[in-house]
Amino acid sequence: MSHLNALFSPRAVAIIGASTKELSIGNVITKNLQTYGYRGAIYPINPSAPDIRGITAYKSLAEIPGEVDLAHIIIPSSQVPQAMEECGRKGVKAVIINSAGFSEMGEDGARLQTEFLATAQKYGVRVFGPNCQGIINSDPQLKAYCNFTFTYPEPGYISVVALSGGVGALIMQALADLGIGQRLYASNGNASDVSISEIIRYYGQDEGTRAVILYTEGFSNPREFLEVAREVAAKKPILAMKAGRTEQGAKAASSHTGSLAGVDIATELIFEKTGILSFTDEGEMARAAMAFATQPIPKGNRVGIITNTGGPAVIATDVLVSCGLDVPKISESSIERLKGTQLPEAALENPIDVVATAGGPQFRGALDVLIDEESVDSIFINFVTAPFTDTQEVARQIVEVSRLARKPIVCNFMTDLSQERFQITRDILKQGGVPFYANPSDAAKALGALTKYGRIRQREIGRAETFAVDAARAKRIIDQAKEAGRSVLSATDVYTVFEAYGIPVAPWRVVDSADEAVAAAGAIGFPVVVKVDCEEIDHKSDMGGVAINLKDGAAVRATVEDMRSRLGKFGRLRFFVQKFLPGGRELIIGATAERELGHLVMFGLGGIYVEVLKDVAFKIAPVTRLEAGEMLSSIKTAALLDGVRGEKGVDKEGIVNLIQRVSQLLTDLPMIQEMDMNPIMAFEDAVYAVDGRIRI
Amino acid sequence: MSHLNALFSPRAVAIIGASTKELSIGNVITKNLQTYGYRGAIYPINPSAPDIRGITAYKSLAEIPGEVDLAHIIIPSSQVPQAMEECGRKGVKAVIINSAGFSEMGEDGARLQTEFLATAQKYGVRVFGPNCQGIINSDPQLKAYCNFTFTYPEPGYISVVALSGGVGALIMQALADLGIGQRLYASNGNASDVSISEIIRYYGQDEGTRAVILYTEGFSNPREFLEVAREVAAKKPILAMKAGRTEQGAKAASSHTGSLAGVDIATELIFEKTGILSFTDEGEMARAAMAFATQPIPKGNRVGIITNTGGPAVIATDVLVSCGLDVPKISESSIERLKGTQLPEAALENPIDVVATAGGPQFRGALDVLIDEESVDSIFINFVTAPFTDTQEVARQIVEVSRLARKPIVCNFMTDLSQERFQITRDILKQGGVPFYANPSDAAKALGALTKYGRIRQREIGRAETFAVDAARAKRIIDQAKEAGRSVLSATDVYTVFEAYGIPVAPWRVVDSADEAVAAAGAIGFPVVVKVDCEEIDHKSDMGGVAINLKDGAAVRATVEDMRSRLGKFGRLRFFVQKFLPGGRELIIGATAERELGHLVMFGLGGIYVEVLKDVAFKIAPVTRLEAGEMLSSIKTAALLDGVRGEKGVDKEGIVNLIQRVSQLLTDLPMIQEMDMNPIMAFEDAVYAVDGRIRI
Repeated sequence: MSHLNALFSPRAVAIIGASTKELSIGNVITKNLQTYGYRGAIYPINPSAPDIRGITAYKSLAEIPGEVDLAHIIIPSSQVPQAMEECGRKGVKAVIINSAGFSEMGEDGARLQTEFLATAQKYGVRVFGPNCQGIINSDPQLKAYCNFTFTYPEPGYISVVALSGGVGALIMQALADLGIGQRLYASNGNASDVSISEIIRYYGQDEGTRAVILYTEGFSNPREFLEVAREVAAKKPILAMKAGRTEQGAKAASSHTGSLAGVDIATELIFEKTGILSFTDEGEMARAAMAFATQPIPKGNRVGIITNTGGPAVIATDVLVSCGLDVPKISESSIERLKGTQLPEAALENPIDVVATAGGPQFRGALDVLIDEESVDSIFINFVTAPFTDTQEVARQIVEVSRLARKPIVCNFMTDLSQERFQITRDILKQGGVPFYANPSDAAKALGALTKYGRIRQREIGRAETFAVDAARAKRIIDQAKEAGRSVLSATDVYTVFEAYGIPVAPWRVVDSADEAVAAAGAIGFPVVVKVDCEEIDHKSDMGGVAINLKDGAAVRATVEDMRSRLGKFGRLRFFVQKFLPGGRELIIGATAERELGHLVMFGLGGIYVEVLKDVAFKIAPVTRLEAGEMLSSIKTAALLDGVRGEKGVDKEGIVNLIQRVSQLLTDLPMIQEMDMNPIMAFEDAVYAVDGRIRI
Repeated sequence: MSHLNALFSPRAVAIIGASTKELSIGNVITKNLQTYGYRGAIYPINPSAPDIRGITAYKSLAEIPGEVDLAHIIIPSSQVPQAMEECGRKGVKAVIINSAGFSEMGEDGARLQTEFLATAQKYGVRVFGPNCQGIINSDPQLKAYCNFTFTYPEPGYISVVALSGGVGALIMQALADLGIGQRLYASNGNASDVSISEIIRYYGQDEGTRAVILYTEGFSNPREFLEVAREVAAKKPILAMKAGRTEQGAKAASSHTGSLAGVDIATELIFEKTGILSFTDEGEMARAAMAFATQPIPKGNRVGIITNTGGPAVIATDVLVSCGLDVPKISESSIERLKGTQLPEAALENPIDVVATAGGPQFRGALDVLIDEESVDSIFINFVTAPFTDTQEVARQIVEVSRLARKPIVCNFMTDLSQERFQITRDILKQGGVPFYANPSDAAKALGALTKYGRIRQREIGRAETFAVDAARAKRIIDQAKEAGRSVLSATDVYTVFEAYGIPVAPWRVVDSADEAVAAAGAIGFPVVVKVDCEEIDHKSDMGGVAINLKDGAAVRATVEDMRSRLGKFGRLRFFVQKFLPGGRELIIGATAERELGHLVMFGLGGIYVEVLKDVAFKIAPVTRLEAGEMLSSIKTAALLDGVRGEKGVDKEGIVNLIQRVSQLLTDLPMIQEMDMNPIMAFEDAVYAVDGRIRI
């Protein structure tokens, strides 16, 4: 039995700190295990009470006659290390520490946390928490409610993991309100040992879990999460929400490359890379889960709509289209078939308006047609109850078709819950596993999520390509800079690294004198750019250290002499002479190292597009060909790459290769902290990095 | 008694087509009046039944002993004109025609509609519908449920008007589910007589209505709606949703000026101009109504947050910030005051985390401080029930503070409704008039709506300015073109009209020959642009009919001669010689006439900004100074107007004046169908229209 099995499927649970006091956590947890119908043994531990809620209590763990898989610890934090020692001796496999007063409460608490963790490690006890709610396992064979919340979930297929207990409770309640069953639940507070990643992996292996809901505010080890999530998401849908978007969004608004690739976007990029469906509204996520729990994933984005009222179908169409769905025309043969089943006033197109007087036969007729119709991948039903309609028959027909359908069916089904005949109608849908909602927008967003997930699953990001490069040479340069204590590489070093990775650079030479500069320019061919190259001068452009479009030797000589006289005081000057390439489209590629994750790579159009419009795309390295292509196509100004107003387009294939080579460089040389190529000049048939910076 | 009073507050209702058949509309309407407790007289009309649901029936209207204010008509459409005649003779003031089969069903139906309308007009009967649900008035003194839906609203302060009965029913149900009372309800179907505008005006005058919810898919007479809505919205909040966004959104995506200013955006612009709060999600709108029904409008966008759990407050902060709210620091003195009331673990900042163990006193303490705190305008409470908390006491404290507060309080209050003690808690909030929601996002969006509305009310758009112009001259030119059967004005006409309205134009001359062109260029000053001016040549640039930056007489002569030889075949050529103004920022201003509304005016940056980024702003003429300023500041590339990367900014004041002069021109000359100035060249201290087009 793995120790996470002991946590999620304990055969016996001890409650260290069980209490006779109503509404105390030590009492509530005992009560929850009892009331929810836990099938294992419950061992309350209490130094004085003979029983807790009628269950025999023990003075200590040691006195318990049988084995204990899992122990709750609900005693003051200062006593937790001693309790952990006792757990270890008893052979407890996992503990849930509900008590607070650890790393979240300053140094003293952190010291206690370190202490009990050492003990746990000594005995091989896995720790959940501290400062946490606990877990729930709704398996009818187990019914483990090791948690102090009060929502008792029905058994189901959705498993929930939430860093925040408050949000976990909200999600659990939202699912319960929607009538959605749940499988496993976990909220691990300080997460001192068992991590979100481990829980997700466990859910991935759990056969009863069909879909996972995750709430997080970030990851302590994002790379580990990325690896685990990629594996699990390949098997079952993960619906996730990350809060703390806006503060980080503000950081991302900065116009500099470095800060553009900020922390805040990393989690969304992890979700994207691993195929996790991301939400920004917890209610929307819970409602989407209702569809994921029962419906197949649509094969495409084409939806057929059946409605008995006009307005709600208009609203649904708006939302579906906004979610990227298409409401296509249906075939002539389908329209012919519809004629046989629909009322004369019905509108036989898509949306199919069966009109308010339609009942079960009309809905069934329209459903049968859309199930067979090849031009639609999913079905949206809008039913607003009219007083004269047999709503139960409509519901039964929907359920019957849904049972056999390989296309998802999602309903907006508006009835008055205060009337019993409508309550029965909703029960028919619920028991039939048809997701239904009280608003067309809510229903449409749920189908939108299902469809988006289908698109995510169809997206094969592939593996990052490996180009033939001179990795050793690049590494040598970086190592030398490191040894010399230089964190910012010289221009020579930057371009040598670029060239080692096959990154096209406009022809260049580094020289020490005006004579050499003139000679170098002659060898490269005019016009040229001259830039000062000096460790002490970081923003050379602002300092007058860049001169472009020099057309002859005299201009080169004058420039070098002028720079020397103005900038000589900063240190030893060298001069970077490079081919001047006018007329291309300015691009920018940047990268920053993210703690524990790897590098974020950024792409955008240079100049005002990055500075004013902040129009850039990010990916986590390694970047695959598909992802590099998406970076080009996802910016708002993507059309400029194809050429507008008679301009020529740029070499997109060349840019895609360039991004991948940058990615390979970052993967090979993780010590690179920050890098940018700004600008890159892109032409119809070539791209060149014309300025670059690397910080290690 | 006005005839709309007869509709919304009838003292006696006849039901023409009342039926003994359960669930038929003629029966349901009788039942609804009965069950809802209508205080007036009910007169079912049925040729054979002695009574309907125990209410004495009459064979005809004429037999009814008393006066009838309102009659439902629920008989086949072919019999409606005759019934209308009888209504007129009986002195009925208003009718609700529930029957379908009129203009929505083709020509025969439309003919019937015309027929009964003529009769109604003859007798002064107001017609509601046909093909509609009806009205509801929840006034406890009246309780008129003249509608065949089944949701019985509690009395309240929100009045609803929905073109679509389906959406009306959805909204009514959503409000009922949220426990929000309603005042008046109207869904008028074909709207053959009583219009949405009239209903909105009536709601504006109704003392019991505090806020209005409107659902529409567009307006038959948008100008009328604009005038009415402006008046009503000045007195009470109107929350509105327009469906059919996306199809129209697609139209707006076209890159041409004309189609950019399409029908689809007009409704949103009407909402903006009149101060209506616009929604795209009906659930969100209903939830917002809950806050509008009970809370004051915040004076600003600064919110103080009180929470007992971390995660939900993070979610709420994200949403509030996304809605434009600010979560400011609170003052040191407030923090001092908090210390006296909060638990030691509490976080005394904003959000104030009172922690999970907090109860009534801690929430009260935090509330008292935020009520007094000058740096916050509204209060958001997140409460996620912990098992050990006295939730009723927390609710009571919130209600008590809310009663006296001039700042709005909105709650996310998560409890388990299946438990009675929590049900009581929610009843305390409900009866105390504190809006609460089951999700932090939902609650935050409701406060966001309230705050946005506060901003809308503070925005004084002012009146359009009137510049001294030569309106007569412009009108003469337009009239002449019209008389001559020309729909597109010549360049001379366009620039003369511009000049008549004080719109700055780069100096220009129109000439017939190369000699004249050279002389004109000399008078204007080089460099110049030469453009061909010929009625038959519309896209002169594509035809090689434009030559820029001509620096001397020889170049002008050569150009004119070349154009004459290439383009002479199209008709009589004239030549437009104009000062060439290089180096400015290209702008575009356009306008289109919208049926029954007036003109939409568009502003944007020219070139790729309009063509690729579609980055433009629209307003309905007349455009005020504030609105013109908003056009400049609301485009995504607004920063370019201020100058970036060392470029100079442009004369924004000049552009604002230019937009207003264009607006005045459009208002004075409504026969203008389409107009554009593309480009306008903007400089640091001046703007010039350098090309223009007017279609009448």
